[in-house]
Amino acid sequence: MALQSPVKAMRINGDRLMGRIMELATISPIEGGGSSRLALTDEDAAGRDLVVAWMKELALEVTIDVVGNVVGTWQVGKGAPVMTGSHIDTVRTGGKYDGNLGVLAGLEVIQTVQESGHVPSRPLSVAFFTNEEGARFAPDMFGSLVYVGGLSVEEALDTVGIDGARVADELERIGYNGATPCPGFAPSSFIELHIEQGPVLEQVNTKIGAVTGVQGISWQELTIEGQSNHAGTTPMSMRCDPAYVAASIAVFVRNLAEQYGGNQVGTVGKIDLHPNLINVVPARAVLTVDIRNTDEQLLQKAEAEVAAFLREIAEKECVRITSLTLARFEPVEFDADLIDLVENIAQEHGHSLRRMPSGAGHDAQMLARVCPTSMIFVPSVKGISHNPAEFTSEQDITDGSNILLQAMLALAEKKDS
Amino acid sequence: MALQSPVKAMRINGDRLMGRIMELATISPIEGGGSSRLALTDEDAAGRDLVVAWMKELALEVTIDVVGNVVGTWQVGKGAPVMTGSHIDTVRTGGKYDGNLGVLAGLEVIQTVQESGHVPSRPLSVAFFTNEEGARFAPDMFGSLVYVGGLSVEEALDTVGIDGARVADELERIGYNGATPCPGFAPSSFIELHIEQGPVLEQVNTKIGAVTGVQGISWQELTIEGQSNHAGTTPMSMRCDPAYVAASIAVFVRNLAEQYGGNQVGTVGKIDLHPNLINVVPARAVLTVDIRNTDEQLLQKAEAEVAAFLREIAEKECVRITSLTLARFEPVEFDADLIDLVENIAQEHGHSLRRMPSGAGHDAQMLARVCPTSMIFVPSVKGISHNPAEFTSEQDITDGSNILLQAMLALAEKKDS
Repeated sequence: MALQSPVKAMRINGDRLMGRIMELATISPIEGGGSSRLALTDEDAAGRDLVVAWMKELALEVTIDVVGNVVGTWQVGKGAPVMTGSHIDTVRTGGKYDGNLGVLAGLEVIQTVQESGHVPSRPLSVAFFTNEEGARFAPDMFGSLVYVGGLSVEEALDTVGIDGARVADELERIGYNGATPCPGFAPSSFIELHIEQGPVLEQVNTKIGAVTGVQGISWQELTIEGQSNHAGTTPMSMRCDPAYVAASIAVFVRNLAEQYGGNQVGTVGKIDLHPNLINVVPARAVLTVDIRNTDEQLLQKAEAEVAAFLREIAEKECVRITSLTLARFEPVEFDADLIDLVENIAQEHGHSLRRMPSGAGHDAQMLARVCPTSMIFVPSVKGISHNPAEFTSEQDITDGSNILLQAMLALAEKKDS
Repeated sequence: MALQSPVKAMRINGDRLMGRIMELATISPIEGGGSSRLALTDEDAAGRDLVVAWMKELALEVTIDVVGNVVGTWQVGKGAPVMTGSHIDTVRTGGKYDGNLGVLAGLEVIQTVQESGHVPSRPLSVAFFTNEEGARFAPDMFGSLVYVGGLSVEEALDTVGIDGARVADELERIGYNGATPCPGFAPSSFIELHIEQGPVLEQVNTKIGAVTGVQGISWQELTIEGQSNHAGTTPMSMRCDPAYVAASIAVFVRNLAEQYGGNQVGTVGKIDLHPNLINVVPARAVLTVDIRNTDEQLLQKAEAEVAAFLREIAEKECVRITSLTLARFEPVEFDADLIDLVENIAQEHGHSLRRMPSGAGHDAQMLARVCPTSMIFVPSVKGISHNPAEFTSEQDITDGSNILLQAMLALAEKKDS
């Protein structure tokens, strides 16, 4: 994978990349500078049209598959393409960067290589996958999941969103019901640039994250039913209090995550009490428990400890607790060679680097099922994401995109093993 | 206070009392058998008209004061009347009993005595006070507070409700802007029959509660501001999590109440997280803390311990906590002679009895500022109140009303001290 000096000196055009990021952000803008482009809405369609137009300006071969995933390929060299990409749908209160960065940096990488005169040994592809956010249709990472064969096309097309719309109808309506079959072709490798969406890189003053994998996720919704009572007239010994139980669970989850240490996180972010009044012991509490770890064994151990705690406190507090699994993904490990590659390039560029797992889900974790995969993270100021205040500096975006450029150039020279 | 045998044998007409309770409940009925008569609404007005008509059927002298409190007095004997009463306004999802029982039992007591031919030495009055619930206008026990001079008439009339309506306008609209001045006359004594609204009497299989006083109440709303973050990408060590802090406070309040024992209660019944999403460490939590005790010293100690815990956890978890006092009432002690009187009558009637504080607020606690006062509790099935499922058996209602009857007869013979 040794590259000659002019190729190693190649750099993307940061201004041009920022220009595209800002232009895409003008589609369905929201107060504070972000965008709102829920998957397969008119807003998403307008974003898609813009990015497809840019792909065509670079003379990429554009394919649209049956679930609306779009792949633009620069047909040079031979063999399976090196692919990059991400998504351009957003949550309702999306920022400017998130998935957009990975897609537009991919375009910028291809344009940079095209302009350099260097001819890669493999085609280069940039993709944007349908409904990564899952904010309109469940599950998230929907398009890339179908792309790798993890969800059948039939089931995907029949999915109904939060607004009652059906994926197949919406694809047809916006004209992105393509003919390319799914699962799609397996790239020779996949590498995705993304903002960290967390505070770690900024806090440790580090430029580049070499992403080692994606945390396993366990999401539960717990419903606690007790006995509603007057807060003044009911002695403590006669209470079956769902609010107290919900609070105890939140404290337990926090303590468990701190005890485990490492990459274990645990969050109770949603609590609903009914009737939710100052002077009433509630009848019911509904809360969510989000626990994540890069180690499947530890994740299972954490789940078991939470379950044991629920049994114990339900008995002690005379409440009934039912649990609904909302999501469960095993941890994903990225390709060791690709992680090394990112690390080596960052060192050559003189950037500080940290190997780190991703706490959020990304399309790359789906592609990892079919080809060697990794990701590059750049810092998110204050860790803010899914919010108009989401921000990554132009310098960090440029530096991260140059890592992507060099990684794709190197991967394009890799022989099939 | 010795009474002759025919008077001691006097008993109310339980069927007639139940008939009035059921008829009043037909005004603004709600599903499940309760009523919805928020203070000074058309529904409340219809309830008032019905009860005033009943007062007039008994030839009571009816006065309506400037804040709408209604007193019906049987003008017999001399001196300050013995007063009973309560309220007929309800919360939005009120039951059939609550305040209605105390008012209609008072009417039944007077009718029973009238029909017996016995002439008490003092007048007997039955009152219903405006806006006891506080569900439309703050504070609760509004009318009785003004009656005893605890709130100025001007301030009371200017009070604006949750729907933007002003007390003075609503009183005029429904025709209950009376001419009788406030504060009102001081009765020679006040005794109120009420459902317990808690589970204690039922749980200990006891018929009558001799109420010793009303718990002091401390209500706080706490706002916790932290740092919203992604639940997957934010390591535990970098969190400033308002949900965790809210949960810790709820657990602390529970543990504190259990440690104190006795009449101490503590409740977190309301928690609102923002944005309240499964995978987001919230930016903000708002919760309420309700602590009550019959002992003012202990209540202050509990408040101080909560405050110390807030300072400690705010520091530890990098959050900002602000506290707003929503209500603060000192404990009220009822008159020892009246408590003894209730206990003695219950014993004579062969009823099981428990001396107990009230965990809820009642008009009686306001009247206690101006005359010897106590209350009689009857059991609430499962402790349910402020709900259409609120229920007290006809037998318990009849037995409790007979205690009220005998207590009022005895108090009517009491000389001024």
